[in-house]
Amino acid sequence: MHMSHRISAFQCSPIRRLSPYARDAVRRGIKVYHLNIGQPDIKTPEQVIKAVRSYDEKIIAYGNSEGRQELREALPSYYEKYGLKVQADDILITTGGSEALQFAFMTLCDPYDEVIIPEPYYTNVASFAHSAMVTLVPVTSKMEDGFALPDISEFEKRISRKTGAILVCSPNNPTGHVYTHDELLQLLQLCERHDIFLIVDEVYREFCYDEKQFTSVLSFPEYADRVICVDSFSKRYSMCGSRIGALISKNKEVLENALKLAQARLCPPDIEQVAACAALDTDDSYLIEVREEYEKRRDFLVEHLQKIEGVKCSTPKGAFYMVAELPVDDAEKFAIFMLKDFNLQGKTVMVAPCEDFYVTEGLGHTQVRIAYVLNTDDLAEAVACIDAGLKAYRSQVLGA
Amino acid sequence: MHMSHRISAFQCSPIRRLSPYARDAVRRGIKVYHLNIGQPDIKTPEQVIKAVRSYDEKIIAYGNSEGRQELREALPSYYEKYGLKVQADDILITTGGSEALQFAFMTLCDPYDEVIIPEPYYTNVASFAHSAMVTLVPVTSKMEDGFALPDISEFEKRISRKTGAILVCSPNNPTGHVYTHDELLQLLQLCERHDIFLIVDEVYREFCYDEKQFTSVLSFPEYADRVICVDSFSKRYSMCGSRIGALISKNKEVLENALKLAQARLCPPDIEQVAACAALDTDDSYLIEVREEYEKRRDFLVEHLQKIEGVKCSTPKGAFYMVAELPVDDAEKFAIFMLKDFNLQGKTVMVAPCEDFYVTEGLGHTQVRIAYVLNTDDLAEAVACIDAGLKAYRSQVLGA
Repeated sequence: MHMSHRISAFQCSPIRRLSPYARDAVRRGIKVYHLNIGQPDIKTPEQVIKAVRSYDEKIIAYGNSEGRQELREALPSYYEKYGLKVQADDILITTGGSEALQFAFMTLCDPYDEVIIPEPYYTNVASFAHSAMVTLVPVTSKMEDGFALPDISEFEKRISRKTGAILVCSPNNPTGHVYTHDELLQLLQLCERHDIFLIVDEVYREFCYDEKQFTSVLSFPEYADRVICVDSFSKRYSMCGSRIGALISKNKEVLENALKLAQARLCPPDIEQVAACAALDTDDSYLIEVREEYEKRRDFLVEHLQKIEGVKCSTPKGAFYMVAELPVDDAEKFAIFMLKDFNLQGKTVMVAPCEDFYVTEGLGHTQVRIAYVLNTDDLAEAVACIDAGLKAYRSQVLGA
Repeated sequence: MHMSHRISAFQCSPIRRLSPYARDAVRRGIKVYHLNIGQPDIKTPEQVIKAVRSYDEKIIAYGNSEGRQELREALPSYYEKYGLKVQADDILITTGGSEALQFAFMTLCDPYDEVIIPEPYYTNVASFAHSAMVTLVPVTSKMEDGFALPDISEFEKRISRKTGAILVCSPNNPTGHVYTHDELLQLLQLCERHDIFLIVDEVYREFCYDEKQFTSVLSFPEYADRVICVDSFSKRYSMCGSRIGALISKNKEVLENALKLAQARLCPPDIEQVAACAALDTDDSYLIEVREEYEKRRDFLVEHLQKIEGVKCSTPKGAFYMVAELPVDDAEKFAIFMLKDFNLQGKTVMVAPCEDFYVTEGLGHTQVRIAYVLNTDDLAEAVACIDAGLKAYRSQVLGA
């Protein structure tokens, strides 16, 4: 029977589509280290679970479409810690950062409009763009530059009457790049010159390493009118399953229009919002500890990956992903090989092939995204698997 | 600054857009009876809240995109009570029935494709259609027929190469019509003849009155391949705020394609799914009691509304809504009047104007949707407000 062309053309998530192979491996008794997905092994702050366990509504009722008022009112003091002036009225609570991205696309872009994005980029953005019939126009960032902002002229070249916005993610998924104050300023000035919006996905805000200062797009009040910030509780408080995010803007027209979309889907999940409220009481020490833990993991991973012959990577400055170049013919084939045909003493790894993190065809073909969301002991096992797996793949498959 | 044309053309939910007037009224100390929204005052089953309060994960982690496995595996025995053969693999858990509708549109329809729908219809469907760039093609159902299925030839006339599906809601929101076995069969035969899908929103399945037998679209195995059933925990267990629904189909291609959309948004909210799991253990007596309560409310409302001069309505057979024709010039103006300029001893009501429940322009202009989600004492107060409000409106505004 007839499915729509658009759904047939829809890519399966490269982060999740190899899952059947992983499940098969597990069925065969193999331990799979999941480096494919940004699911931290860090515990959710205790008071979040406690708040859930104290949920005391008699009716799990519809809430406000814009989110629980107490959550919207509690958020500004979180932002204040970063010196950011955000008010309850600037915040629309969404079902995950995912929904905030979808709302931003629908609000700013008509079908066939364009959003300029540095690639590699968070691949699910392609799905949201495809759903909204928005075309992603890529500017390629390069490993040898640490995936920094490409020359601003590369962005300017791509601006047309169809451009609705530029979208960046900082700290970046998948590259780990943290956009500097100067980079953001360049982007904002460009957006102003061409009267378009800048959307910044800041869901990894807390994960900046090497004492690197994080700069939020919300810290440029003079450009506030053309800024949408996408935020989420998922990574910050290790509560990805709650699906609570936010769309933040000082532009009232953006919020009023996004609210129409929010009203259609009625409200964000209620109990999860209670959990999110409690998350805001998390002690700073939790976030610092988590950051230090990830920094340790990053250091470990970079050090050990770079020792493997033929593997290249740059050192991520933030988030908990890295892009690694592998000495293979096809990263997806290799990823499947690892799950289907390989194990090292009953263990293997799952990684996300990077091709779908690029718009430009052919790029990322031999790259993988690695999420360093496991403790260093597990990472050591995982790296050993990658090392041995590469050798096995090269000899068994490539005949090298 | 420039918003998209599509968002500018997007209607605000008529169920929610008058909320600012209601909030204002409350601020002025007026008690507002909410007949505008399907938020039951019925308690969520105790074991649901208990399950939430026993949530014992250490990490609120990403789950499967298709939903918690235990939830998918528990659902078939719920359907079995209705004699319906549904398997875990036929079920995609969604973030509310809303998301299931969105997934269905995206999966079956390309932009500018058409979905035929009896009007009046659940107005938020218009938003989902608009987002997916799907055109709703209406067939008008009439109050004098109890909003029964219009002649099947009216549907057939509207089928074109662009038609992706017919969508009905049974028991119907907003009309209360419960589609009979014969009506569904006629629709399925028509869909088969033209090789299109039938989508049936059955989220009010439990709410059928007058000992009327509910017929599910899932009870026609010979047509199973062209059927999508939209379901939800919201109304059945009075847990609207959880936003847990389901898309059910025996057509594997539909599920595989809808799963791509599900993967992009990662997973449904986790804690709410735990709550939904517990809801499935609800004793049948709860559902029976709730149904009896609504039937009592319906009887009360119909009896008393029909006593008001100039008010017309048909007796709903299911769900908890009714469409009433009011002796006014403009139902939206009247609804605003009730919130802004009227109160009866400090009380008033909020209703949903019906114009946006129709695709055809001009229809529903003097109709409102009334959700009888309040107990009969409150309903008595609400009806008194409507009665007095109509008199006041007619003399103050219409000069009648």
